Amino acid sequence: MSCDDSTRRSDCPISYSLDIFGDKWTLLVIRDLVFAHKRHFRELLSSTEKIASNVLADRLKRLEGCGIITRRPDPDSGRRVVYELTEKGIDLIPVLLEMARWGARHDAQTAAPHRAISSNTGIKSIPFSVSS
Amino acid sequence: MSCDDSTRRSDCPISYSLDIFGDKWTLLVIRDLVFAHKRHFRELLSSTEKIASNVLADRLKRLEGCGIITRRPDPDSGRRVVYELTEKGIDLIPVLLEMARWGARHDAQTAAPHRAISSNTGIKSIPFSVSS
Repeated sequence: MSCDDSTRRSDCPISYSLDIFGDKWTLLVIRDLVFAHKRHFRELLSSTEKIASNVLADRLKRLEGCGIITRRPDPDSGRRVVYELTEKGIDLIPVLLEMARWGARHDAQTAAPHRAISSNTGIKSIPFSVSS
Repeated sequence: MSCDDSTRRSDCPISYSLDIFGDKWTLLVIRDLVFAHKRHFRELLSSTEKIASNVLADRLKRLEGCGIITRRPDPDSGRRVVYELTEKGIDLIPVLLEMARWGARHDAQTAAPHRAISSNTGIKSIPFSVSS
């Protein structure tokens, strides 16, 4: 799926956002690119949530089509590909942080450290864990 | 689907959030409850994006199961039900605002007014439209 108008539901900016990343996996891929500094397909495949390789490939293709990530040959290994966030992708960090704050406050089993959650101001630091 | 552990993928707070509202519709329902002041099933069904009634019923049930909304008889009409956000639901507003900011900045066709988008600080006001 690319970032085309065929799936557009309205001109509401929240609807636009959900047309692109309204699913269970896309923002986890962004999370790993941003906070776990993952760059390669194999690294992105290895997170705790166990994304399927065909789902990961689909999401990477869509994110590239939407201008949120780029892919280029790895300068250290011509056979591998490196994925990187564009400015549009980096601009998703505040969305991730607010979702992390909400999850940390409302999930009794959260991995977020207690000190990360302030009752008054919400998140104070990045409160989630990712595994490689 | 209720808010149970069977769908839990990890203890990451972003993953927890996406387990609950990682789809194309749930946050649009929250949007309409928050910003369009919709309270009844029929009102929620009437937004521009044209949610299907079975999808809306499923999402409302899930949101209630997750403690994000409550349902009670409408004091003005015993045959109707009123949906309202809990504190946990109201706490999703910052997530919606960041998604609105991102969508408004990156969608060339956005309905958000230009003045709502600041190149430096992001959103200055709520930049989306909903129809009743």
